[in-house]
Amino acid sequence: MSRVYNFSAGPAVLPEEVLKEAADEMLDYRGTGMSVMEMSHRSKAFAGIIQEAEADLRELMHIPDNYKVLFLQGGASQQFAMIPMNLMKNRVADYIVTGQWAKKAYQEAQKYGKVNKIASSEDKTFSYIPDCSDLPVSPDADYVYICENNTIYGTKFKTLPNTKGKTLVADVSSCFLSEPVDVTKYGLIYGGVQKNIGPAGVVIAIIREDLITDDVLPGTPTMLKYKTHADAGSLYNTPPAYGIYICGKVFKWLKVQGGLEAMKERNEKKAALLYDFLDQSSLFKGTVRKEDRSLMNVPFVTGDEKLDAKFVEEAKKAGLENLKGHRTVGGMRASIYNAMPYEGVQALVDFMAQFEKENL
Amino acid sequence: MSRVYNFSAGPAVLPEEVLKEAADEMLDYRGTGMSVMEMSHRSKAFAGIIQEAEADLRELMHIPDNYKVLFLQGGASQQFAMIPMNLMKNRVADYIVTGQWAKKAYQEAQKYGKVNKIASSEDKTFSYIPDCSDLPVSPDADYVYICENNTIYGTKFKTLPNTKGKTLVADVSSCFLSEPVDVTKYGLIYGGVQKNIGPAGVVIAIIREDLITDDVLPGTPTMLKYKTHADAGSLYNTPPAYGIYICGKVFKWLKVQGGLEAMKERNEKKAALLYDFLDQSSLFKGTVRKEDRSLMNVPFVTGDEKLDAKFVEEAKKAGLENLKGHRTVGGMRASIYNAMPYEGVQALVDFMAQFEKENL
Repeated sequence: MSRVYNFSAGPAVLPEEVLKEAADEMLDYRGTGMSVMEMSHRSKAFAGIIQEAEADLRELMHIPDNYKVLFLQGGASQQFAMIPMNLMKNRVADYIVTGQWAKKAYQEAQKYGKVNKIASSEDKTFSYIPDCSDLPVSPDADYVYICENNTIYGTKFKTLPNTKGKTLVADVSSCFLSEPVDVTKYGLIYGGVQKNIGPAGVVIAIIREDLITDDVLPGTPTMLKYKTHADAGSLYNTPPAYGIYICGKVFKWLKVQGGLEAMKERNEKKAALLYDFLDQSSLFKGTVRKEDRSLMNVPFVTGDEKLDAKFVEEAKKAGLENLKGHRTVGGMRASIYNAMPYEGVQALVDFMAQFEKENL
Repeated sequence: MSRVYNFSAGPAVLPEEVLKEAADEMLDYRGTGMSVMEMSHRSKAFAGIIQEAEADLRELMHIPDNYKVLFLQGGASQQFAMIPMNLMKNRVADYIVTGQWAKKAYQEAQKYGKVNKIASSEDKTFSYIPDCSDLPVSPDADYVYICENNTIYGTKFKTLPNTKGKTLVADVSSCFLSEPVDVTKYGLIYGGVQKNIGPAGVVIAIIREDLITDDVLPGTPTMLKYKTHADAGSLYNTPPAYGIYICGKVFKWLKVQGGLEAMKERNEKKAALLYDFLDQSSLFKGTVRKEDRSLMNVPFVTGDEKLDAKFVEEAKKAGLENLKGHRTVGGMRASIYNAMPYEGVQALVDFMAQFEKENL
């Protein structure tokens, strides 16, 4: 067995310790005589797993008691409909469009009401975060929506938008648990777990209790009501149990690492290594405005498509996987989530330096 | 490590060979240097996994070319809305209510149109399948809905209803791949995989192509349109990749066992062992009309609640797990899905005989 450094944007690298534990417990979870995959979601053993996962997440993020933690399915894409179906009481919402996922959310919401694009960075291929200190927030907006970290473009909101008192809804799929967060600033924080937390197929939603009501849009499926899941402790129907179990292990791992403060420090150190290299390189350059750079996703280019392709190919041979950039940006992208060790980023930078020497 | 015999109704027992392979591949899937959990769903390795899973399922079930196979999320409960949202062109549908899940599907569909309960077995706690040879099928019904095997009540349609030319939609969650099936008799066959195929969090839908259209009810979320997933080969967004991978392993395992003909034979032998014991027992009795008995879920009672509880407790100590019946039926229920070996049923019957001797 030989592990690569996996820079995939998601599904993405997980802590090796977590995978080893999962492998060890595959046929017999702690003396139960069965795999977590085989376990009734109504069993005591699984109740322990999901409750402990929630408790650990609450501890890591300092989630206040007036927020529910929900384990859902369907990915962020399903949230794009679920959010307006549940929150659009006035049928008005404001969207800040900073990338492809925010744009998809914005488009989907149009099925359900009047949706305003109050800011966008599409003019420069989403390579920056617009100034959101004084936006034309709609007086009757039910919420203001952002995608906080843009996986494809490598930007991140360093300051949350001024929503002028409106509820903030944030997709944090690609920066979930990468640094501390003040939950009280949001009405709803959600993300697919498959980038920074666990296997694809689980969405975690952290939602303020007053937003959880039966007053949803007509025709909202029972499964797409937050209240359905909140009332049932995420066990209205069979949840994606194995995925939740892996998430729980990652929460434990994060606690051992020192929590989100420690992760932030570690992630900043990793990102600095790569950004500092990019800033002094004569061959490679980052594509994002410096002040908006993500700690998680780092796109970069040589400016020569053939050279980009050569880089990706040779990097792969050197055990540095999934460095091809998204087609809308081109070039390369290194996703350096929580589980990517510093050594992985060092190996990437060393390889880039060598490649630069040989190809400049 | 010591494995129990797990009679859980779902999530349920999986083949030990499959779990062993999954454990072995956890840190490095076949030389890729990563777990399937860490793999981009756009990677070649994952394309191989999902395509092979689909091909094997098609082979096992002899699925004709004019049917699509979709890997979805949200459980059967989400299908309860997705089905009317996609298929109710006339806003009329007929439901045959033979258990709690059919009833929930029937209730959910009422959000979307005129829904008729054309048959029911609720009068006798769903302990039988009504005669469906000449039902009052609505002339303008978009489909007729059944739950083919009723997990809680232990009944199964041995003959499909006469739908008088209307599209048949069937939830087969608890009998999926337990015996051969003539796919052409259905418009849509679907099921959560967590009973007979894999880990919770994956729904497989097999749907005839003419039923996949853009003509869905207004307000249908993009993620709840069959067409979204059909057009994208189940990769519109990140699918529940690890679950699909396990399903694929179970399909391979089924092929090695000899396919669905062989499974039917094996399942009939297992079920006969248990039913024959029940039929001669002076203490235990089955709760289902004989001709409607499920091969997968076998409810039985002693008629004495305290004795039932004692049985469940002592069985657990003997390594026979999850035998408590559903609260609406009481008593016991043994789910004996594909992955339950004959030896497991034999151990149960031996234990029941011993218990009967001691407690009669």
